[in-house]
Amino acid sequence: MSAPKKVVLAYSGGLDTSIILKWLQVEYGCEVVTFTADLGQGEELDPARQKAEMLGIRPENIFIDDLREEFVRDFVFPMFRANALYEGLYLLGTSIARPLISKRLVEIAEEVGADAVSHGATGKGNDQVRFELSAYALNPGIRVIAPWREWSLSSRTKLLEFAEEHQIPIAKDKRGEAPFSVDANLLHTSSEGKVLENPGEEAPDYVYQRTDDPETAPDTPQMVEITFEKGDAVAIDGEAMSPAALLTRLNELGKVHGIGRLDLVENRFVGMKSRGVYETPGGTILLEAHRGIEQITLDSGSGHLKDSLMPRYAELIYNGFWFSPEREMLQAAIDKSQEHVTGTVRVKLYKGLARTVARWSEHSLYSEAHVTFEDDLGAYDQSDAQGFIQLNALRLKLLAARKRRMG
Amino acid sequence: MSAPKKVVLAYSGGLDTSIILKWLQVEYGCEVVTFTADLGQGEELDPARQKAEMLGIRPENIFIDDLREEFVRDFVFPMFRANALYEGLYLLGTSIARPLISKRLVEIAEEVGADAVSHGATGKGNDQVRFELSAYALNPGIRVIAPWREWSLSSRTKLLEFAEEHQIPIAKDKRGEAPFSVDANLLHTSSEGKVLENPGEEAPDYVYQRTDDPETAPDTPQMVEITFEKGDAVAIDGEAMSPAALLTRLNELGKVHGIGRLDLVENRFVGMKSRGVYETPGGTILLEAHRGIEQITLDSGSGHLKDSLMPRYAELIYNGFWFSPEREMLQAAIDKSQEHVTGTVRVKLYKGLARTVARWSEHSLYSEAHVTFEDDLGAYDQSDAQGFIQLNALRLKLLAARKRRMG
Amino acid sequence: MSAPKKVVLAYSGGLDTSIILKWLQVEYGCEVVTFTADLGQGEELDPARQKAEMLGIRPENIFIDDLREEFVRDFVFPMFRANALYEGLYLLGTSIARPLISKRLVEIAEEVGADAVSHGATGKGNDQVRFELSAYALNPGIRVIAPWREWSLSSRTKLLEFAEEHQIPIAKDKRGEAPFSVDANLLHTSSEGKVLENPGEEAPDYVYQRTDDPETAPDTPQMVEITFEKGDAVAIDGEAMSPAALLTRLNELGKVHGIGRLDLVENRFVGMKSRGVYETPGGTILLEAHRGIEQITLDSGSGHLKDSLMPRYAELIYNGFWFSPEREMLQAAIDKSQEHVTGTVRVKLYKGLARTVARWSEHSLYSEAHVTFEDDLGAYDQSDAQGFIQLNALRLKLLAARKRRMG
Amino acid sequence: MSAPKKVVLAYSGGLDTSIILKWLQVEYGCEVVTFTADLGQGEELDPARQKAEMLGIRPENIFIDDLREEFVRDFVFPMFRANALYEGLYLLGTSIARPLISKRLVEIAEEVGADAVSHGATGKGNDQVRFELSAYALNPGIRVIAPWREWSLSSRTKLLEFAEEHQIPIAKDKRGEAPFSVDANLLHTSSEGKVLENPGEEAPDYVYQRTDDPETAPDTPQMVEITFEKGDAVAIDGEAMSPAALLTRLNELGKVHGIGRLDLVENRFVGMKSRGVYETPGGTILLEAHRGIEQITLDSGSGHLKDSLMPRYAELIYNGFWFSPEREMLQAAIDKSQEHVTGTVRVKLYKGLARTVARWSEHSLYSEAHVTFEDDLGAYDQSDAQGFIQLNALRLKLLAARKRRMG
Repeated sequence: MSAPKKVVLAYSGGLDTSIILKWLQVEYGCEVVTFTADLGQGEELDPARQKAEMLGIRPENIFIDDLREEFVRDFVFPMFRANALYEGLYLLGTSIARPLISKRLVEIAEEVGADAVSHGATGKGNDQVRFELSAYALNPGIRVIAPWREWSLSSRTKLLEFAEEHQIPIAKDKRGEAPFSVDANLLHTSSEGKVLENPGEEAPDYVYQRTDDPETAPDTPQMVEITFEKGDAVAIDGEAMSPAALLTRLNELGKVHGIGRLDLVENRFVGMKSRGVYETPGGTILLEAHRGIEQITLDSGSGHLKDSLMPRYAELIYNGFWFSPEREMLQAAIDKSQEHVTGTVRVKLYKGLARTVARWSEHSLYSEAHVTFEDDLGAYDQSDAQGFIQLNALRLKLLAARKRRMG
Repeated sequence: MSAPKKVVLAYSGGLDTSIILKWLQVEYGCEVVTFTADLGQGEELDPARQKAEMLGIRPENIFIDDLREEFVRDFVFPMFRANALYEGLYLLGTSIARPLISKRLVEIAEEVGADAVSHGATGKGNDQVRFELSAYALNPGIRVIAPWREWSLSSRTKLLEFAEEHQIPIAKDKRGEAPFSVDANLLHTSSEGKVLENPGEEAPDYVYQRTDDPETAPDTPQMVEITFEKGDAVAIDGEAMSPAALLTRLNELGKVHGIGRLDLVENRFVGMKSRGVYETPGGTILLEAHRGIEQITLDSGSGHLKDSLMPRYAELIYNGFWFSPEREMLQAAIDKSQEHVTGTVRVKLYKGLARTVARWSEHSLYSEAHVTFEDDLGAYDQSDAQGFIQLNALRLKLLAARKRRMG
Repeated sequence: MSAPKKVVLAYSGGLDTSIILKWLQVEYGCEVVTFTADLGQGEELDPARQKAEMLGIRPENIFIDDLREEFVRDFVFPMFRANALYEGLYLLGTSIARPLISKRLVEIAEEVGADAVSHGATGKGNDQVRFELSAYALNPGIRVIAPWREWSLSSRTKLLEFAEEHQIPIAKDKRGEAPFSVDANLLHTSSEGKVLENPGEEAPDYVYQRTDDPETAPDTPQMVEITFEKGDAVAIDGEAMSPAALLTRLNELGKVHGIGRLDLVENRFVGMKSRGVYETPGGTILLEAHRGIEQITLDSGSGHLKDSLMPRYAELIYNGFWFSPEREMLQAAIDKSQEHVTGTVRVKLYKGLARTVARWSEHSLYSEAHVTFEDDLGAYDQSDAQGFIQLNALRLKLLAARKRRMG
Repeated sequence: MSAPKKVVLAYSGGLDTSIILKWLQVEYGCEVVTFTADLGQGEELDPARQKAEMLGIRPENIFIDDLREEFVRDFVFPMFRANALYEGLYLLGTSIARPLISKRLVEIAEEVGADAVSHGATGKGNDQVRFELSAYALNPGIRVIAPWREWSLSSRTKLLEFAEEHQIPIAKDKRGEAPFSVDANLLHTSSEGKVLENPGEEAPDYVYQRTDDPETAPDTPQMVEITFEKGDAVAIDGEAMSPAALLTRLNELGKVHGIGRLDLVENRFVGMKSRGVYETPGGTILLEAHRGIEQITLDSGSGHLKDSLMPRYAELIYNGFWFSPEREMLQAAIDKSQEHVTGTVRVKLYKGLARTVARWSEHSLYSEAHVTFEDDLGAYDQSDAQGFIQLNALRLKLLAARKRRMG
């Protein structure tokens, strides 16, 4: 395959993607365009720009975008409408960010006339799959370069040698290998690898970065009221907020109260198991609250269908199929269910726990029952239960009769 | 319909079922057989015997069974193999006890030659459905008498009058109406009604009976290690225990640490919504631990299939279809998955939270990967990811190409 | 419950609904409004008007609507987008007509200020459920009167006596009981009861009314080409047609070639089994063709998700939940998948069989592959299969290794 | 990777696998063991033995097995219990044979101490996946050699040159390329490629090899009665038969009547679409009959759960995951449902159509209803329908009331 001419690189400004930047230049002699996104990972973006410039990227080839609102509005919130949990527990914080990054990589590639995009995900993880499936789904002709699967820099030593050889500055704390690797965005921080590799050993305290230890969290619970409109959170304690601002506020609350820690061994799409520590402070509160508002605004038909679709929906996101027709089909079904998911939920935050304690809504089906059926007689007739049970029992009786007859 | 001749009544010894007992005698002139089960509800059974005798039941017509081991072994544990949660949150503590009670009612009816069974569940709830579907599924010719749907004792006043008229003793605290109603067994305590009816108001503290308040729970976390064999818990902290003993021990631990409180608005099978407060201390720990051991012993194929079947399985139990062929089919699938779900999980208990922090197993697929693939090269070849992604992307590329072509 | 004042009756003009009409007048002293729909059942509607007038219904209280286009466009076609089959075989011809009738009943009731609607479905079948669930879903306060569940006219003799007493004319062939009962509309004809009751005996030839016997059908096959746009059929052999005209044309073709006969024992929602003979000539061709066009225009992600949702979707329609939020959620997902289901299918009709033999489309993903991947190298790289298989095999290898190790 | 020492090759005796045989010897200098299975493909096996010997394989390295009974009993029949259809139409004839071949390959490899197995499937199809996933699932350390993905013999010309160079005899009709490729076994014959590649053109008549043309089939229908026990067919027209004998007999019947032709465009697991022509004469009759017997012996709970699991089950088999825990879980559920699927079905065969016309069983739930409910009153009480509908309608009424209130 011929060398690419111009490559858009997902660039964090860190050592690894700086090495990739240089490697692309050296290996292919191609023009490199950097793209750095603010997804709420909590890092300054200016250093990324300076570093890119220092590595010879021309200013017009440096793209830096604040994607926080788009991230929460168009990716996180639609996912939360589904109450998505991968393998029963994981809030998909990393998975949901990848498609957005790919979307921008492809857009920039088309804008600047690049023929390839590149990312710094390794060859053993899920992220390579997510980046690449998303890119191909948006531009079938795009080329994706995954240096970690291609190059010979297979050890830390070789990487550092390459960096030194090409005058890439190495921060002192990057000389040694990190005790674990981290991914962060406005929804979560994940940690994995090295000190976390043995799932039979507890994660050391210093792994947790995003949440305070529940044991040192305040001794007094705090209440927070979250208001939803059509399935999306729109206000906290009565104050309307933009999606990103709202999630930021929930993160602050969750952090203080030690909420959203998860120690998980999960199944990667690529076939291995992986142990990760996730911190999703605001998201954990949000999921609890969304369930709380659905409890009074969804009927059983909608709710149970959603529950049955959720595992597949979560799996699709985890596996990198955000931009797939089946995810969009499920989203259409889920969104349809949210038309009346409007109202307010009170959640109690205390030492790691976020628990719904009250919820109310103009759209409440619970209240509707009381409004509709003012007196008990005109409403729910207890004698109806007799027929309901008899007809539900009919086939069970026939099965039992057969069993008795046939022995 | 002619009057029943002999009725087996699910009898608690309390006021309501005592009234039913007498009402059956008066209304139908029939012989009444009482059945009182110890399902771990935490009440003495002797008073039930005395009260039945006092109401004229002959000793040979009084059945009192300790069903705790059967309850946990044959009902609770199979359900926990599925990680069953109704509507995402409810551990099904009441639902899972009903089929066992019905099973014994029907067995006793056949033993004593009774032509009917009777229960004290109201006409607005789920329990009537559960009792009756179970009874009909086990004996298609049995007759079920549900006094609450039949009699005219529709108010508290009328009930008390009937009790007085028939010399049924009324405890002083039963003169007024209880502020909420309670169901309890070894798995959980549920509270609902009256003071809990407004889901927009927090449940008062005095509703909680089974768990200490997280805020007053110990300031020091406690670790507990639970060992599983083929999906069922068999030991705590290395000590082998019977199913009921094990759940009892977990309940004690959960109680102290305030674990397993749930404030929920749920959809009843009979069409209404209901707000309940559930306390499932041991069960909450058990679910967490079971998920923990599955994380390392199940592969993604088994795990994801289980996840997708679970909502239907939980719904069946909630709706009263334990003794249905479809529940048995799902159970067969779930049980098949548990053959290697063997190992130990460490769970940290602290102020309402039970969190898996470590797990290990001879059957660990996580460890298997390390054993099988001793060196990285002979194992997971990073270059395989390229082909994996390309073939997974193929249809997405074609879809994208079509979209671009068709506009 | 007090008597209704004004009732809208689903009125066919036949003996049974004429008796109901009169019974409503006699029993309740209420005003009766008749509603007769042309759903393509193949009967003249004028006699229904005359008969209603003869029974004393005032002209302004007689509603006769041609609903054929609405029926096919808004009910049949959306259902066919899903390839819906109940219990693997039944095309839901009766089920899909009931919600539309209820919709008009409720609309007319609101228009004329009626407080109730009424239908002639018996108390043992599915149709009562479908009529009533639909009515309640559209007007929660409407009252539904189901005379067959209420009156004492429980035998043929009593019905005829009532008819004679009230001067309802009885056609000669209605004096005796029909050897089976029939329901018909533009989608199908169903026959059940009496001579069909033993599922171990073949249905007699005279039961089939809508399709010629395959054995006497033409000895020469006929080809028909059906064109679809976004999942709906729009033209036959190149000629654009309205939905009802198109289905009518397919019915003619299917009739001649003996297509669409089904002898089925099915599970009713009310708990019994029922044996029916269905004739769905046009629908059977349409389903085959729709599958044919989906084969080249849907990718596996969409198609397999549709397949997995279909049984639930079909069950909802069969059970009468067309106007339920969960059916609407599934419809949203299904409709989302149909955006590119555009193209033409050639179906061969011959002696009972309709078989897709060719299909083509501007939206074909099959062709897209050839366009996109002009040369084999730039397209599907066979070496990718290696990695695809290896990663899919990874967990299976680990499972096998564990099995070998653990014995 | 080092060269394999001993390879077990799935050997048909045809030109392609003979070339592979030689290529393995030449390329790796390894010992080759041939395995030829009789799966009912209708070819003599003796020539395969002679040809293998001629190519230098020692007699003790030539394995020829008649696997027909095992194939039908342990693979085809379990699959038919599920009524499995891939993408709504395909009976999975090729897919279900692959795991058995792999199973024997792996067994022989262990028996003779071979370190690899090899197959002749191409790099673009599903069969490579099925062979290899099955092999790895049974022996995680086995090596699989797929020459079509490895060698440079990428054109027909090169293959023939290689054959000539190594004295592999080439039948005259193999000099040119076949107009389509064929796979056959006792369940089906599939044809694909070349003349079939344009799905917009009808398959030429000469493609069909396994079934007579419906147009030339007998003008008189034939009845066949198939008896099932616990979900598996055991007798035809009252004559008990072994699984393979039974399927052979059904194939004969189906062939004569032109039954089981399918022209399909399907989605391959590897991401492409493929057009195939399938002939499954006996299987098509068997599926129809199995559905027929389930109609009277399964209740709706079992049947609907089966229907909802089927698409996933079929997909697993199609994709090559027969030996996966999730297929085994689903099988456990399906098998559980078949305990009473016992009885006889009469199917009418006529010019391409196989249609159930009667079915009867000692286990019939349809008959049970009549036995159990001798008089109509003691059985199904029509008034029960009222309560059944009211409680099913409850949530729909509340939804409608909310809609009206909220506008």
